[in-house]
Amino acid sequence: MQALLNEILDQVRPLIGKGKVADYIPALADVPADQLGIAVYGNDGELFTAGDAHTPFSIQSMSKVFSLVQAIQHSGEAIWERLGHEPSGQPFNSLLQLELENGRPRNPFINAGALVISDINQSRFAAPVLSMRDFVRRLSGNPHVAVDNRIAESEYQHRARNAAMAYLMQSFGNFHNDVETVLRGYFSHCALSMSCVDLAKAFCFLANDGFCKHSGEQVLSTRQTQQVNSIMATSGLYDEAGNFAYRVGLPGKSGVGGGIVAIVPGQYTICVWSPELNKAGNSLAGMAALEVLSERIGWSVF
Amino acid sequence: MQALLNEILDQVRPLIGKGKVADYIPALADVPADQLGIAVYGNDGELFTAGDAHTPFSIQSMSKVFSLVQAIQHSGEAIWERLGHEPSGQPFNSLLQLELENGRPRNPFINAGALVISDINQSRFAAPVLSMRDFVRRLSGNPHVAVDNRIAESEYQHRARNAAMAYLMQSFGNFHNDVETVLRGYFSHCALSMSCVDLAKAFCFLANDGFCKHSGEQVLSTRQTQQVNSIMATSGLYDEAGNFAYRVGLPGKSGVGGGIVAIVPGQYTICVWSPELNKAGNSLAGMAALEVLSERIGWSVF
Amino acid sequence: MQALLNEILDQVRPLIGKGKVADYIPALADVPADQLGIAVYGNDGELFTAGDAHTPFSIQSMSKVFSLVQAIQHSGEAIWERLGHEPSGQPFNSLLQLELENGRPRNPFINAGALVISDINQSRFAAPVLSMRDFVRRLSGNPHVAVDNRIAESEYQHRARNAAMAYLMQSFGNFHNDVETVLRGYFSHCALSMSCVDLAKAFCFLANDGFCKHSGEQVLSTRQTQQVNSIMATSGLYDEAGNFAYRVGLPGKSGVGGGIVAIVPGQYTICVWSPELNKAGNSLAGMAALEVLSERIGWSVF
Amino acid sequence: MQALLNEILDQVRPLIGKGKVADYIPALADVPADQLGIAVYGNDGELFTAGDAHTPFSIQSMSKVFSLVQAIQHSGEAIWERLGHEPSGQPFNSLLQLELENGRPRNPFINAGALVISDINQSRFAAPVLSMRDFVRRLSGNPHVAVDNRIAESEYQHRARNAAMAYLMQSFGNFHNDVETVLRGYFSHCALSMSCVDLAKAFCFLANDGFCKHSGEQVLSTRQTQQVNSIMATSGLYDEAGNFAYRVGLPGKSGVGGGIVAIVPGQYTICVWSPELNKAGNSLAGMAALEVLSERIGWSVF
Repeated sequence: MQALLNEILDQVRPLIGKGKVADYIPALADVPADQLGIAVYGNDGELFTAGDAHTPFSIQSMSKVFSLVQAIQHSGEAIWERLGHEPSGQPFNSLLQLELENGRPRNPFINAGALVISDINQSRFAAPVLSMRDFVRRLSGNPHVAVDNRIAESEYQHRARNAAMAYLMQSFGNFHNDVETVLRGYFSHCALSMSCVDLAKAFCFLANDGFCKHSGEQVLSTRQTQQVNSIMATSGLYDEAGNFAYRVGLPGKSGVGGGIVAIVPGQYTICVWSPELNKAGNSLAGMAALEVLSERIGWSVF
Repeated sequence: MQALLNEILDQVRPLIGKGKVADYIPALADVPADQLGIAVYGNDGELFTAGDAHTPFSIQSMSKVFSLVQAIQHSGEAIWERLGHEPSGQPFNSLLQLELENGRPRNPFINAGALVISDINQSRFAAPVLSMRDFVRRLSGNPHVAVDNRIAESEYQHRARNAAMAYLMQSFGNFHNDVETVLRGYFSHCALSMSCVDLAKAFCFLANDGFCKHSGEQVLSTRQTQQVNSIMATSGLYDEAGNFAYRVGLPGKSGVGGGIVAIVPGQYTICVWSPELNKAGNSLAGMAALEVLSERIGWSVF
Repeated sequence: MQALLNEILDQVRPLIGKGKVADYIPALADVPADQLGIAVYGNDGELFTAGDAHTPFSIQSMSKVFSLVQAIQHSGEAIWERLGHEPSGQPFNSLLQLELENGRPRNPFINAGALVISDINQSRFAAPVLSMRDFVRRLSGNPHVAVDNRIAESEYQHRARNAAMAYLMQSFGNFHNDVETVLRGYFSHCALSMSCVDLAKAFCFLANDGFCKHSGEQVLSTRQTQQVNSIMATSGLYDEAGNFAYRVGLPGKSGVGGGIVAIVPGQYTICVWSPELNKAGNSLAGMAALEVLSERIGWSVF
Repeated sequence: MQALLNEILDQVRPLIGKGKVADYIPALADVPADQLGIAVYGNDGELFTAGDAHTPFSIQSMSKVFSLVQAIQHSGEAIWERLGHEPSGQPFNSLLQLELENGRPRNPFINAGALVISDINQSRFAAPVLSMRDFVRRLSGNPHVAVDNRIAESEYQHRARNAAMAYLMQSFGNFHNDVETVLRGYFSHCALSMSCVDLAKAFCFLANDGFCKHSGEQVLSTRQTQQVNSIMATSGLYDEAGNFAYRVGLPGKSGVGGGIVAIVPGQYTICVWSPELNKAGNSLAGMAALEVLSERIGWSVF
């Protein structure tokens, strides 16, 4: 496995220079583009890494999975009264569908849906950001995981599009807390800094029937775990979820920081990272690495 | 397994009367609503059935999988120059997205995409309908599978929506053959009459790395098989693909005749049938039966 | 004329009870529904009134004309770099078109366009609300015209939809000032309280080549006046501008307070008011009164 | 007037070369681009011309006015059960709004609306094309007006977009006759060949309370005439109707053949022609000529 990971990184490294680092906020645009790392964490606790697997990066939309899991933990199926679990067929930040469908987001992994989940969590937690941070520290086994406040603040300064979505949902009665407060929390979650290793460990319960072995925590039930994975499979990669299923064949979730997590149910959790994105906003080299890995080992769930 | 199938049908039978048989053409509206059948076909050739598993019904959109497979057989990856493999987030017969995206359908399982596939096959086959019929006869092992011409003709009489889509794509240069001719063929494919048993056997190569044991035919490569399954998983149930993944967790494809096929990769092919549909156009009792079955045996791929 | 106005009000009064007072904010929902008034003001200074012509009401979107005129006064043609003067074909508060057209509103009389105009005025005036109030006091010759702060505050509390629009435009770079500040000003303009008489006098320059006789002010040039009238004619009545042109044949502007102003170029300015609205958000009895009046006197510009 | 027309043509002639002749069918693309003509026809029968005012060209969408007038003649207000008279805010050949609004076109001057009008006329006339031709011959006083069959046939060969619209409306039950037959008729109307003089005379009843003096025919009532003019004012120039009202201030109707007719109610009918179009599909030099003419004489109805 170790040799394979090294080989795969060598194979996809030439893609660096052909994508584009997220540049809608300066703090993200500054990240050196030539980084590439991968971590594979087995359900038995074995860890394989290659490249920049220990370098923390901004997890961005990968945090949407943590938020969703928190919401399922305290509210279960009730959350689906507020949003769906259907793919959207629209860019992640589109308002068009949201207006046509009366402020009900398609799924928790487009921005509108993640904002509703943040709104749900805001109603439940006294301190949503601390609550999330501690949750992620436990799951990753890394007590130093923290929010990069410079990034969170910069995202907030560029909040216009997300603010538009939140207010649009509020106008339909589907947003209950103060918009600015929820946005602050949402951006803090996105600005968590974690490495491939942190993330592979933090998401390992999704490959293991909901159980996180190193923290000893039954995070979700088996059934809930399959359901979260199913949403990742149909909606985890923005407007490229179908292509990811076609090429990689695993449930996954990406972030504009360049990270992608993929789940091999019953076996492994993979996290790959490279900052340059393709046109759909997913890590260019990351997608390629996962495709080769999945094909080489025959990991497609399909 | 046999006992379980009987039990599941008993459990979901009370749903009959709560859905609505497709009524956009008289020939479909006439089908008695109280029918319910299931067939499970193992990769080892073992067959389990319950209820009306041997009664032929109109396969409708399930034919879209056969058409796609034919197109992949002769044209491979080249077909993706004409359409995508992303979920659409729109009703199966919407023109909105088609116009916004310049006549390129999202995937081969919405009507627009299936029409493009039919157009591709029309350019390739001298007699596309015969070609399809013979293909399906071989795969199902049933030499009596035939087109119900009364249904095909009735569909053609009500072709307006599909004709609109085909002409819209033609206006974007993404439709090459005569619209009326392709529509005739498309409706003939939809009007194939097959039973749950026929369908479970005909689709069994999708559970078996592309190999159809009883016909001895390598229909697709392993990789292509995973790819077709991935498209079924993200786009196989109209605007309810996410819900099917969430509840059933298997690649599947439905038709408005009330049939649904689901694939348990490496193991089984399931076909369930009950004519009454839910609001999304999928068999109400069929969805429920597959959900119970998947949950009871733990068949989710996620 | 006096007799005709009385007769027309009698004729349309039976419509009261068949519409619906705007109820999205309590302060508007409280307005007694059975009020009906009309004022006709001639370019020669002659004034005719009937019914509740002296009762102040909330001018709401009629203020969009005043804001546009202010913006034209200080910025002229330059404002069209920020928005268009095309009818929208969408409800007044839709975000769909705004997103598809990159945050550029179709015209100054849909909410998004009026918000851009408010943003333009915010950049120009130290105190936009006072500036507007004084402008309207001069034009109407009524020094007591004032903002109803209870309504302005209530609108602000229900700002979600307008806030969504403003933030969406900001995300496209087409909104320069603080969203909350501009919204405050915008709602204050909408909450101006004026009577039919006040409004007929305040808008009379639009019937008189841009000259307001009683204030002695050349508000706009002849050409600019025609241009403002043209925008009222194609976009002044929300998604019913075409119907207003068809039935009344005059440039006009309505508000959800139930007021409608109509211009007979070269001759008269008419203001009619009745709080109950039709489905398009325009005064039901007001539209009917204007239709009869226009037809009886042959006032259509067409 | 004569001198003024010559002067205006000289002033706008430099625009030739900056637009683009319609090229979606070869027969239109072949028209020499450097032609420019204008005719002004007074209600008193006086005729002024300049440039290529006697050269016939393809009237294209200007025929939509004739079709509408025919439909009003035999069916009156009943036609509005099938379509609206609101501006569309969409390109002339868009299907998006048509689908969202259940197959009911916004107005008779977008293609979908004109097709519904053609469908209405098809139900009424034994020979719609002859009927239209004779109607136009009478109105223009030119017994040689004829359909250019080469253009009609070429349009039919490129019918995909219009066919898509017609079938979409049929799928909503808003199209009653055979699609191909109606399209044939529609394209024949568009392919009528007329000069500026022919058109100025043919449309003169719209400036004269519905009465065509030289044919002695009361084509429409005064009220109906105002209504047709109002629809031209709000929807006559595709997605540029607002701009035409803003710049020219007259009811008008354009065609992709490069012609534009404008009505000065009570006084004159103007027809200008130059084949090169702007981005909105309206004659570039024609728009400019009408703007100057309207401004110089102060003809804006607003």
